[in-house]
Amino acid sequence: MNSYIYGRHAVRTLLESDPQRVHRVYVSVTAESEFKPLAQRHHIPVEPLAGHQFDKELEGAIHQGVIARVAIEGLMRDYHQFIGSLESSPSSSLVLLNEITDPHNVGAIVRSAAAFGVSGVLLPVHNQAPITGAVAKASAGTVFLVPIVAISNENQTILDLKKRGFWIYGLAGDGANALPDEKFDAPAVFVVGSEGEGMRAKTREHCDILLRIPMHPAVESLNASVSAAVVLSAWSSQHPEAVNL
Amino acid sequence: MNSYIYGRHAVRTLLESDPQRVHRVYVSVTAESEFKPLAQRHHIPVEPLAGHQFDKELEGAIHQGVIARVAIEGLMRDYHQFIGSLESSPSSSLVLLNEITDPHNVGAIVRSAAAFGVSGVLLPVHNQAPITGAVAKASAGTVFLVPIVAISNENQTILDLKKRGFWIYGLAGDGANALPDEKFDAPAVFVVGSEGEGMRAKTREHCDILLRIPMHPAVESLNASVSAAVVLSAWSSQHPEAVNL
Repeated sequence: MNSYIYGRHAVRTLLESDPQRVHRVYVSVTAESEFKPLAQRHHIPVEPLAGHQFDKELEGAIHQGVIARVAIEGLMRDYHQFIGSLESSPSSSLVLLNEITDPHNVGAIVRSAAAFGVSGVLLPVHNQAPITGAVAKASAGTVFLVPIVAISNENQTILDLKKRGFWIYGLAGDGANALPDEKFDAPAVFVVGSEGEGMRAKTREHCDILLRIPMHPAVESLNASVSAAVVLSAWSSQHPEAVNL
Repeated sequence: MNSYIYGRHAVRTLLESDPQRVHRVYVSVTAESEFKPLAQRHHIPVEPLAGHQFDKELEGAIHQGVIARVAIEGLMRDYHQFIGSLESSPSSSLVLLNEITDPHNVGAIVRSAAAFGVSGVLLPVHNQAPITGAVAKASAGTVFLVPIVAISNENQTILDLKKRGFWIYGLAGDGANALPDEKFDAPAVFVVGSEGEGMRAKTREHCDILLRIPMHPAVESLNASVSAAVVLSAWSSQHPEAVNL
């Protein structure tokens, strides 16, 4: 299956990190000087981009003059292969998405995961927005940087991760543990549910710790992707080696 | 001027915090049981919401069955009145937006400011997205909770805030000070620029400290609203009294 990745930042990241995934690059005259040489260096065909050529595929999204046709196949990794080859340490972390249905939120969470040095994003194959062009764009191309791992059964995966020494943290507005007081001294999994509904009850039961972001009593909640970024940055600030490579 | 505020969370927050601002509430059958009594308690007229009645005004946004017609006039406060009546302490902070043009980012930053106990959001009246229905929605109604303060000259405002004892922190990808090492022990102003361009050069010069969020070298930047949330949460975690009221 092909997808269209668009936007200068997303396409640039992809051409630099995973060029063999790109089948073709479409550029407008304004983007040509940057993207034509970059694509040609990797022997990727370049075509001029006409005004409204991809309006249907992109549903009117702003492409900033550059669109890449990309194979999304093979992007999702197998959980057992991934976890088998992961050398986990107390500075390892994973994110598990629990029924996040908005592609913008999925993309934004992947971007934060990549920025804060998370080792992988676990994505249930059911009841969860898949990786599409919109997700890749919202991730600013980082879906091609951080491993995206398909999981078929969340609760089994959580139990397996516990056996492997991971601590399971669930993000919950009513969590008993306040984020600023938490010491992250074991490999960590952060489970992020939807803003409205939170995690599924069953998933919540499996968490070792429910983490709460302290906030002003008049504000009910934060967007799921903002909550995730706040928690991942707090984790990362205790594990500078995850980002200072 | 009227604006339309939509979405259950935004309208609920508004009806609870600032009902006199609401002229009329439109509800679909699915939202009636919650919102009709809430509006009537404040003597606000309620009308049934027909299918596509506000499609033009809302530009196709999802209203979740509830729309409020709201006066936005008088929302923006005068800087001198605001700052004159603010009792600042080492646990006070302000956010200053520097040419943030995307209404979703403005709204998301206001929401984080409200959540993390910031005392006000300073909004330049030029080159800056104003408070519109889209901003209010993206803020989940928190534009009506946290003071929004109009400023006509950013650099003069910054100089005035410095005289009043505030430290000026600019968010910058190349900042010398890493966020996790920072001790926030004076009244603080956080200046947030756009994701692509950052702060204006002149504004940057006026900052006492340029703050950097440490991130993985392959990731260029974070979205402006995510960066703001990460910095405000780090500040708030050092000032629990700002949110534990």
